[in-house]
Amino acid sequence: MKTSARNQFNGTVTDLRIGTVNAEVHVGLAGGETIVASVTKESVETLGIKTGLSVIALVKAPQIIIISDFGSYKISARNQLAGTITEVKHGPVNAEIDIELKGGQKIAATVTNDSVEALGLQKGQIATAVFKAGAVLLAVPS
Amino acid sequence: MKTSARNQFNGTVTDLRIGTVNAEVHVGLAGGETIVASVTKESVETLGIKTGLSVIALVKAPQIIIISDFGSYKISARNQLAGTITEVKHGPVNAEIDIELKGGQKIAATVTNDSVEALGLQKGQIATAVFKAGAVLLAVPS
Amino acid sequence: MKTSARNQFNGTVTDLRIGTVNAEVHVGLAGGETIVASVTKESVETLGIKTGLSVIALVKAPQIIIISDFGSYKISARNQLAGTITEVKHGPVNAEIDIELKGGQKIAATVTNDSVEALGLQKGQIATAVFKAGAVLLAVPS
Repeated sequence: MKTSARNQFNGTVTDLRIGTVNAEVHVGLAGGETIVASVTKESVETLGIKTGLSVIALVKAPQIIIISDFGSYKISARNQLAGTITEVKHGPVNAEIDIELKGGQKIAATVTNDSVEALGLQKGQIATAVFKAGAVLLAVPS
Repeated sequence: MKTSARNQFNGTVTDLRIGTVNAEVHVGLAGGETIVASVTKESVETLGIKTGLSVIALVKAPQIIIISDFGSYKISARNQLAGTITEVKHGPVNAEIDIELKGGQKIAATVTNDSVEALGLQKGQIATAVFKAGAVLLAVPS
Repeated sequence: MKTSARNQFNGTVTDLRIGTVNAEVHVGLAGGETIVASVTKESVETLGIKTGLSVIALVKAPQIIIISDFGSYKISARNQLAGTITEVKHGPVNAEIDIELKGGQKIAATVTNDSVEALGLQKGQIATAVFKAGAVLLAVPS
């Protein structure tokens, strides 16, 4: 599969919660992290998504928020992957932040240059990549 | 209506599925494609969305993933519109990819330059614009 | 809390609607506006989100659509905050539009330069920042 989504996480479906219209799919990664995807119930049925299935979770870089310090707050987003910033690529307006998770998986997030400055983001810094379950697409073997 | 959303699809509501909090609206386009929008149940009620209504589906360019080769995978995203790349506009960090569907409708997607290179995206290539139902806003006559 | 999300709205939970998988959280801002966030039911339970709780609603700039003229249309997006454009920052491909609401709160939206030109967006113009409930993350005191 060749896709423009910068983030592709290989994993296995570990849990499935079906609602009236939407469903929640939990994908366990090799490094021990879990990614939660919100997809429609119809997609679960059409694609035959079930526990134990090998899938790829796709997330676009602009969907990811970087949090460098939670202070005294918790965040509602279901996906919060902590790691270390390995690269900050500056563009004229936006920047790309690469974060390496403990398991070695990398995540790319696109943020504005203003945010890079405001947070003082730099290589070697601890940071958390945060994204909503609704930002995740699933690719399953056909 | 004047909106910054780069993608505006005129269509007609062909199906409606109501859940407890969310609803799924199917919009048939003139070219034969269907766009699925996930909106809240309250929006369906407030806007009087019903089968047969003429609506405009709006999608921002950064919400769209380009897939140039599905390999042996299927994707959970409800919207997958195949066409031909008509233009690749390079910026310093991001690029805009324009795809023309069979029905003549055009779609604009924003992706990183890295993805353009990794996928070898170029004019004339077959590609699929993929986006989630949750990325779609609906405009209805007031 | 230090986060890359350009838009952070301080408010109080005024209403809560729980579905099977998802929930809708209404956040009242000091200026009188309400922001609607769609989060998973599990997040509501885990974070102890309830009426009266002080929270911060986070929205990334690329998630926001600018509408300068609704014409004869209404939009399904639950969040529609009207204000005045205070700045248009041009990049090579994208631009950032800053809008000030009546209550003084500012909103930053990232749109393409093509949209800025097509809509003729400029400082002093009336415009509405539109985003879906699914684009909103909530930060709550831990």
